[in-house]
Parts: sequence; C-alpha cells; structure tokens
Amino acid sequence: MEALRQRVLREGRHLGKGIIKVDSFINHQVDAALMVEAGRELGRRFAASAPDKILTAEISGIAPAVCTGLALGLPIVYARKSRPITMPDPVYRRTAPSHTKGKSVELLVSPEVLKAGERVLIVDDFLASGRTILALVGLVEDAGAVLVGIGAVIEKRFEGGRQELASLDVPIEALVVIERVEGERMILAPDN
Amino acid sequence: MEALRQRVLREGRHLGKGIIKVDSFINHQVDAALMVEAGRELGRRFAASAPDKILTAEISGIAPAVCTGLALGLPIVYARKSRPITMPDPVYRRTAPSHTKGKSVELLVSPEVLKAGERVLIVDDFLASGRTILALVGLVEDAGAVLVGIGAVIEKRFEGGRQELASLDVPIEALVVIERVEGERMILAPDN
Repeated sequence: MEALRQRVLREGRHLGKGIIKVDSFINHQVDAALMVEAGRELGRRFAASAPDKILTAEISGIAPAVCTGLALGLPIVYARKSRPITMPDPVYRRTAPSHTKGKSVELLVSPEVLKAGERVLIVDDFLASGRTILALVGLVEDAGAVLVGIGAVIEKRFEGGRQELASLDVPIEALVVIERVEGERMILAPDN
Repeated sequence: MEALRQRVLREGRHLGKGIIKVDSFINHQVDAALMVEAGRELGRRFAASAPDKILTAEISGIAPAVCTGLALGLPIVYARKSRPITMPDPVYRRTAPSHTKGKSVELLVSPEVLKAGERVLIVDDFLASGRTILALVGLVEDAGAVLVGIGAVIEKRFEGGRQELASLDVPIEALVVIERVEGERMILAPDN
C-alpha cells in the first residue's frame, strides 16, 4: 500500500529499541480515510479466507479492525484489557506483554461474542514480537473458534513475530513491512 | 436513526443503576455496518459546524469517532487513558469518573495532535452524566482549540448530561435517546 508506505516514511519515527512512533495517523490521531483504505486492502487480501468475524485488541487495534470489518461486511470484536461491569462471567482470559507500556496486560473476551466454529480473522495495528497476537489466538482457541488469518497494518519484521506465528499455518499479511531500523531511519520492504 | 433504535430495543439491556449493556453491537462487539451508518448520520448533523477534527476518548469512543471522521473526511484523535512511551512531554491531562469501571480515569492528549484554533467535534458512544465529555472539553480548552459540537450514539437522558453541557452553547446530538428506564425496560424518545 504505497500511500501508507509514504506516510510511514514521512511521519513515522524510530524512537530507539524498535519503538515506532506513528501516533499522528495510526494510534492517537487516526487518518480515517487512510485507515479505510488500509481496511479495504486487508479485506481484499483475506476475502478468500471467508472469515465470519474480526478479532482485535483494544486500544489501537480498534480502528483498523473496524475498517476491515466495514470492507468485508463483518462484525468486529475487541478484546478488553479490563473488565467492564457489563461483562458477565465467565470470560475468556489470556495474558500478553505490552511493548509500549512496559508491563503485561490481560485480554478478555466474553463468550457472548465469540462462539465455537466461527471463522476468525485477527487484525491489529502492529505485528511485532507476535505475543499480543498469540494471546488473541489463545482466545480464539478458548472459544473453540477457527483462526483463518492474521493481518496487520505495520509489521516490524526485525522483532520476529512472523516466525513465532508460522506454526499456526494461516495466511499472515502486513500492509507495510519495516525490515529493520538504522538509528532513526526505517528500512521498508518493497511494496507487497 | 430507526435501525439503531430497533437494535437498542432488541439487544440492549438495562442491568440496573442506569447501566446499559450494548456490548453485542457497540462496545465489545461492533456492528461495523451499523456504526458506519451512525457515523454518517452524525456527520450529516454536524457538517454545518465545519469541524476540522474529531476528538473522542478511548476505548469505546473510537469506533463511532472513526466512522464520523470517515463521513466528514476528517482525522480523529482519541484521548489515551494511560501514557504510551511514544507520547512525549508535555501532555494535556484531565480527569473523568468512569461509570462502568467504578473509578476515575485520566484522559491524555498530546499537543502534537490538538492545536490552537482547530475546530473540534467531540464524539462518544454514550452521553450519560456528561463528565467524560466535560473532560474532553477541558482538553480542547487546554489546547486553545474551539469546541463546535458534541455528538453521541446513545444518550441516557435520565443521567442529566445534556443539562451539564448546556452552558457550553454548542449543538448536542444523540442518535438514540433513552428517556428513562423502568426495571429492565428502556423507554426511548421518538426518532429524532
């Protein structure tokens, strides 16, 4: 997705230790039009996987998941990090480390919104170490649902998440791939 | 918005103490198509206010804000409840009570994404007591930006937020208005 690549190169910044700042268009401010384009492209890539539902993690996964859901005509579910009083027992519960918060977080999904047999596409803003996505995969397993694919807006390939997820044997797609960082510079893979 | 009214009546539930459960289509699972319709309708109602930007609060404000941003061709900003390491000093900071979490939360916005003079439309999933929205209004003031309107998907009119916000003297719109609750039953205002 060339528009997104250009935006990452122009406005993204490597803050050190692999932390990529894209909060002017992805995860604090959101460029709604660009995100809709990203959702459309993820939708195009996963249409053949025939998902029934999209699963993401609050907070920054919500915008790309909603836009992918819109493209595919599907509901989305966002796993919660704390439990609202509207969420009854029992809940599915997995733990993931948060790279940008420096601590572990829980991811909670109610069985009311994730059912056995549903075909689930996981969408998130970043594919980095893969550990948040593995927690979401765990929630899919807890529900007896079927994982059919994993999509991310941006992949930090140098963090190795793609290898971590390879044994799941589902299609993995990222719209922009950061191969590596050199100081403040990000080296992107060619448009894919 | 008749489709949304029907959905609230069919799937929404009053859990007691004014807590409304709509997590099968608004704030855990999201019906993306319905949310896009809601965003389009909020966009139609606020087009004349000529906003430059939409401001909401994570978490459940993100989906309606993105959809309103899409309708109006505007970026959205979501105030964060905790500070990611990508957010530099200084930050604008206000406190709001969370009805469904039972404690106060901070709302943080970076001056990088909210500027003096910008015309800001606040969008959230619920207008209830108005206190979350007042915290967002405080962030608009901190930035020297200009509040031009307040939109919500669902208003709990019995919690009095509309009166709390009246002195701001901006248009306030809600797509579905719950006038009052009687046991488990919700009494909606006529479609507006």
